Amino acid sequence: MKEKKVRITERSEDFSRWYTDVIAAAKLADHSPVKGCMVIRPEGYAIWESIQGVLDGMFKATGHKNAYFPLLIPESFLKREAEHVEGFAPECAVVTRGGGEELEEPLVIRPTSETIIWHMYKKWIMSFRDLPLLINQWCNVVRWEMRTRLFLRTTEFLWQEGHTAHATFEDAEEETLKILEIYRTFAEDYLAIPVISGRKSDREKFAGALHTYCIEAMMQDKRALQAGTSHNLGTNFARAFDVTFQDTDGKVKDVWATSWGVSTRLIGALIMTHSDDSGLVLPPNIAPVKMTVIPIFKTEDEKSKLMEYLDPVLKGLDPEITYHVDVRDNVRVGWKFTDFERSGVPLRLEAGPRDLKEKKVVLVRRDTGDKEFVPASGAASRIKETLADIQKSLFERALGLREANTHGARTLDEFKDTLEEKGGFILAGWCGSGECEERVKEETKATIRCLPFDAEQDEGECLVCREKSPQAAVFAKAY
Amino acid sequence: MKEKKVRITERSEDFSRWYTDVIAAAKLADHSPVKGCMVIRPEGYAIWESIQGVLDGMFKATGHKNAYFPLLIPESFLKREAEHVEGFAPECAVVTRGGGEELEEPLVIRPTSETIIWHMYKKWIMSFRDLPLLINQWCNVVRWEMRTRLFLRTTEFLWQEGHTAHATFEDAEEETLKILEIYRTFAEDYLAIPVISGRKSDREKFAGALHTYCIEAMMQDKRALQAGTSHNLGTNFARAFDVTFQDTDGKVKDVWATSWGVSTRLIGALIMTHSDDSGLVLPPNIAPVKMTVIPIFKTEDEKSKLMEYLDPVLKGLDPEITYHVDVRDNVRVGWKFTDFERSGVPLRLEAGPRDLKEKKVVLVRRDTGDKEFVPASGAASRIKETLADIQKSLFERALGLREANTHGARTLDEFKDTLEEKGGFILAGWCGSGECEERVKEETKATIRCLPFDAEQDEGECLVCREKSPQAAVFAKAY
Repeated sequence: MKEKKVRITERSEDFSRWYTDVIAAAKLADHSPVKGCMVIRPEGYAIWESIQGVLDGMFKATGHKNAYFPLLIPESFLKREAEHVEGFAPECAVVTRGGGEELEEPLVIRPTSETIIWHMYKKWIMSFRDLPLLINQWCNVVRWEMRTRLFLRTTEFLWQEGHTAHATFEDAEEETLKILEIYRTFAEDYLAIPVISGRKSDREKFAGALHTYCIEAMMQDKRALQAGTSHNLGTNFARAFDVTFQDTDGKVKDVWATSWGVSTRLIGALIMTHSDDSGLVLPPNIAPVKMTVIPIFKTEDEKSKLMEYLDPVLKGLDPEITYHVDVRDNVRVGWKFTDFERSGVPLRLEAGPRDLKEKKVVLVRRDTGDKEFVPASGAASRIKETLADIQKSLFERALGLREANTHGARTLDEFKDTLEEKGGFILAGWCGSGECEERVKEETKATIRCLPFDAEQDEGECLVCREKSPQAAVFAKAY
Repeated sequence: MKEKKVRITERSEDFSRWYTDVIAAAKLADHSPVKGCMVIRPEGYAIWESIQGVLDGMFKATGHKNAYFPLLIPESFLKREAEHVEGFAPECAVVTRGGGEELEEPLVIRPTSETIIWHMYKKWIMSFRDLPLLINQWCNVVRWEMRTRLFLRTTEFLWQEGHTAHATFEDAEEETLKILEIYRTFAEDYLAIPVISGRKSDREKFAGALHTYCIEAMMQDKRALQAGTSHNLGTNFARAFDVTFQDTDGKVKDVWATSWGVSTRLIGALIMTHSDDSGLVLPPNIAPVKMTVIPIFKTEDEKSKLMEYLDPVLKGLDPEITYHVDVRDNVRVGWKFTDFERSGVPLRLEAGPRDLKEKKVVLVRRDTGDKEFVPASGAASRIKETLADIQKSLFERALGLREANTHGARTLDEFKDTLEEKGGFILAGWCGSGECEERVKEETKATIRCLPFDAEQDEGECLVCREKSPQAAVFAKAY
């Protein structure tokens, strides 16, 4: 029984089906028998491990420590913070039976962990000496979703959630923005996804936050995707869970909080930013395997000669340039090329008997398909350069797409026309009122993605009500 | 408000309370508001990260890949394998509500993932080319427990579970034993816990397994602790989930399975094997921080001179020798020493103004309390040697304890006397019948921990029925 390669739908034909096909072709994930839950297959999980490795290092370098809080939260905890329960209660999975008996109080599976964590912080925080408390956890969470899509929106997903405690608003705000900057750096330098950093409107902020900052990216279908959020929670959770500290002046004060997270959704963002009609494309800085090596042989003898020839090239690589050698002899070379294209590996190195004779190897870039003949002796450094160049090009291509698809609009009519004709991001004035925001959403399905940090304006007007708009907002249809 | 140091109960006074005190003093874990669930605090989680790092490397080096399967499993899945449901159904936490509505079919939170994984394997395994399939996952599981203890037995715990699929019984058996050997190596070389490898009796094996192998350790109170298990599942799950493959001979055959796991319980084993009445003791090969550095100063000037003096010593350390410098100036040195003793860090380096003058530093071993003055110039290599020696001594001390507390017994009366007077492990003949096994358990509370690999015997007799005993069993009271 031979595996059949399923055709990948083209993006122009059906973007949504293309997305699903790319995931299936690269074996990243599969549907589980429970609606909305996802199985992350080894090829997909390796990307998550790569994401975890980099981010975890960045969190630790800024003084954060990992911990683990329980999956199950008493249902009553959620109710302590009014906005929080309103936001999350409808999405909860509830355990009502345990060990064969009905539970006295139902337990919810964490949709996020603010409540259980602040319950514990009450035990751990007494004095200013205990602050700041900088904790992160990597875990699974469950939010009951009606419409789910692999990686983008699943009932269970994996994420990290940071939860920090501070003595002042200023400290909490500094932490919130520091993490946002870590997310921006990570998205741009590793995932090669250009993002807009900014603040959420009150309607779009986290349930229970004072305010929410976010990074927003544009996918290839010109829709927006929120790639990470960082919340200044004010003293809302401290008050709900009665967490105070004795300050240096001897006074007892409320504790300030932040929380922040990114999830397996980032893998969805990666796919929709870089992949093409042939399959997955991964930026070298996050790809678990950087290069596929394909010796092209007909006989065992040719194969072993080629492996011997390639040995010094591969040994000369920097250790971070991980590679996979495809030595299968039960499939044709064309099949291997297709596997490579679907796998997302950034670079292919080929060598056949003629290359051996000419002391060359062939490098083929996954992103452009460009082919280059390189002397074997200089291959290691050329591979390194090429990977760096692929990383850079992917970012620039994505940035170019966003820039070409970001438009202005002064009136709601202009806004509607632009959105319909061109799609993408629309940068427009907004007075700050929920009413105007809601009207745009109702009439166009576009929402305010964020209020970018660098978009203050002196003389702007709200595109709906013509009132003064101190700063422009980015509107878009979003995932 | 100053933190007060709680007294640690002595082991001889109350071993169980000592265990809890050590955990509290080292801030490893805390009770959660949900009965039986545990919060793993940063100091405890760092040990788990250290365990994960080493084991994950060992799994990957033997060809295993990580993946992630869903938390929620349809209740009906558990029922497909008769023994499995009998073993796990009574321990399940059950989700009956989701998104505000009653679910049509209740979902259990995974107590272990064989069922959901073999459901997926049916989709992924077609031919002999798909075998072996070697997958592991790091995740949380929930088993409703009546009597819980931090790390040792908690309703939710963290673990890794490997699930592999093979073409033949022999391949599955080889995998099962390969993993057991990885567990043994890890326990002995990293955790410094001597273990006995062997097979479980049918009564003690995993629900649904053909047979279960395990590693068993002796704690300081002479009770046994199962530290890891590896199961040959035969074709039980393949048949329950209808997973077959087309073999090289063209015939369609059942797939053979293994599963294996270790959990956060290992942290409990670490504590009960090495710690003492002053607090936590960690073996250097697993300790997240290998050395605490305490400069002893009265003035800021002394402090900065000492830090300058110590700088080349610390810079000369091998990168794997992680250290923490305790430069707090709001607590006395004695307080820092107590913190060091409770933290489990294997080695302390002190230096005061006189040491600076004499160009020396002081090394203090956590395990023995031994103090050594060392020339600063040779400190780096002496630190490395001392850490290696601590690792070795901890293992030998634990091995000595086990050897001194392992006894023989020829009759049930002798068995009872020995168990009551001396405790520990009893190596005794056993005919293999469940009846004799059950009788020992009923009358003594000791169970068969395992049938050690190296305990074949030609002329043994069962301690209960006097029938022939082809191999001795290790009996003990267990955690």
